[in-house]
Amino acid sequence: MKLLRHGPRGQEKPGILAGDGTIRDLSAHVSDIGGDALTDAALANLAKIDPMSLPIVAADTRLGACVAGTGKFICIGLNYADHAAESGMAVPPEPVIFMKATSAICGPNDPVIIPRGSTKTDWEVELAVIIGTKCKYVSEADAMGHVAGYCVANDVSERAFQTERAGQWTKGKSCDNFGQVGPYLVTRDEVPDPQNLKMWLTVNGTKMQDGSTKTMVYGVAHVVSYLSQFMTLHPGDIISTGTPPGVGMGMKPPQYLRAGDVIELSIEGLGQQRQEVIVDLV
Amino acid sequence: MKLLRHGPRGQEKPGILAGDGTIRDLSAHVSDIGGDALTDAALANLAKIDPMSLPIVAADTRLGACVAGTGKFICIGLNYADHAAESGMAVPPEPVIFMKATSAICGPNDPVIIPRGSTKTDWEVELAVIIGTKCKYVSEADAMGHVAGYCVANDVSERAFQTERAGQWTKGKSCDNFGQVGPYLVTRDEVPDPQNLKMWLTVNGTKMQDGSTKTMVYGVAHVVSYLSQFMTLHPGDIISTGTPPGVGMGMKPPQYLRAGDVIELSIEGLGQQRQEVIVDLV
Repeated sequence: MKLLRHGPRGQEKPGILAGDGTIRDLSAHVSDIGGDALTDAALANLAKIDPMSLPIVAADTRLGACVAGTGKFICIGLNYADHAAESGMAVPPEPVIFMKATSAICGPNDPVIIPRGSTKTDWEVELAVIIGTKCKYVSEADAMGHVAGYCVANDVSERAFQTERAGQWTKGKSCDNFGQVGPYLVTRDEVPDPQNLKMWLTVNGTKMQDGSTKTMVYGVAHVVSYLSQFMTLHPGDIISTGTPPGVGMGMKPPQYLRAGDVIELSIEGLGQQRQEVIVDLV
Repeated sequence: MKLLRHGPRGQEKPGILAGDGTIRDLSAHVSDIGGDALTDAALANLAKIDPMSLPIVAADTRLGACVAGTGKFICIGLNYADHAAESGMAVPPEPVIFMKATSAICGPNDPVIIPRGSTKTDWEVELAVIIGTKCKYVSEADAMGHVAGYCVANDVSERAFQTERAGQWTKGKSCDNFGQVGPYLVTRDEVPDPQNLKMWLTVNGTKMQDGSTKTMVYGVAHVVSYLSQFMTLHPGDIISTGTPPGVGMGMKPPQYLRAGDVIELSIEGLGQQRQEVIVDLV
């Protein structure tokens, strides 16, 4: 299934992508795409519904982040060997983890907002894992059983805030609209091998990132197990697993986003995002 | 007012500390201590209630974290000059920020849980600021108007996870029960000068930390304003403002927590926490 959330920001309703490409409303069957709705049993119940029997949603309806109730937005740093190289960093001996603020989460086609004072806003296409059931100290063998599904994420990053403003990456990772998540939560059963998915990102039509989850250093099962050694993972938690080469920071000379730019990004089987870049007018 | 949350974990109800030291139930007046209940107007309405008219709650009732619906648990690193020195770090040129997982949040007297594989679990008494109303790009002059109040926090930290396990502090800061918050949210009006509060922490009765918010490098108004330049702050967000000297890591030789230890900590006017240290049995 391709589960999604549609409607104005903060008022999203649950939905599903039907086989004919239409968006269908799931409100009669589940309150939201999150929490208890993400267990294997709950997902199996949703799978019994014929999407074509559900009310149709206008094709131009805004999509929200494809999961609700995210308590943690955890990212894995430098998890593609080539990206580590372009960042001038070594591949870490174990996963590097950092947090994005959950307030950065937004819909897949919501604008990337350049924050005040930013000169180095950058893109990162990433495979995001959505936790379906609580786990702690889970083995690598059992980890995948706690994954509800996958989606595309743009781990938007302000490189000066991240690396030139005193310690820790949080500052450059947490700005509003720095986390586009979706369009769909594609359930685990439809992604037999998360370590073999093509992924790409363009800026104004030019391909900047063109990779595959094949070159991920620490794979999904390892990362879920690893994180659960440090903290309990809860339904709706998002784990963004790192980006392949081709970010603006790695170019010679570096290239960053400007107002008016258009970003498109996709991962094989997980759908596509499109964002306009705007400056913050708040 | 001293607002609190009482009851079993996950089922806490709102409450208030009455003048005679009894806990009173606020369920008839507010659904929880969080979100819209934290605006100045909502707090002013609560202040009109005579706590002695409210139902009494048994004195031995568990207290939860004193605020609900926390989206971000942001910490300021190395924010006391003496603590930076004991950590072998320089005072940063601007605030260092990092995140604790919100899943680490627990009640003020809930145990500190030593996670599996930990040998360096440490304590940190901190003044925590609780955001009352949404703010972004707020000036230092206007920042305090967005603060609902203050509480004690124990920023429990695993030093090996934090500093010896590849990049970023998140790993050593986010374990379950690594964030005791409370006992009370003391409203802003009762804390006229947050930069002049005595604070202390004992382990097994021995005073380890004995400081004052007077020696904080970046004060509350500055920190709130500063953070809001990077991300929108929302009601219920917690900002823990750093710890004074006296953490285990800074001792010669370093001293860390062991099962059976008892930690007590307090900040002037904000109440006291008490935790037993246990090993994780999950």
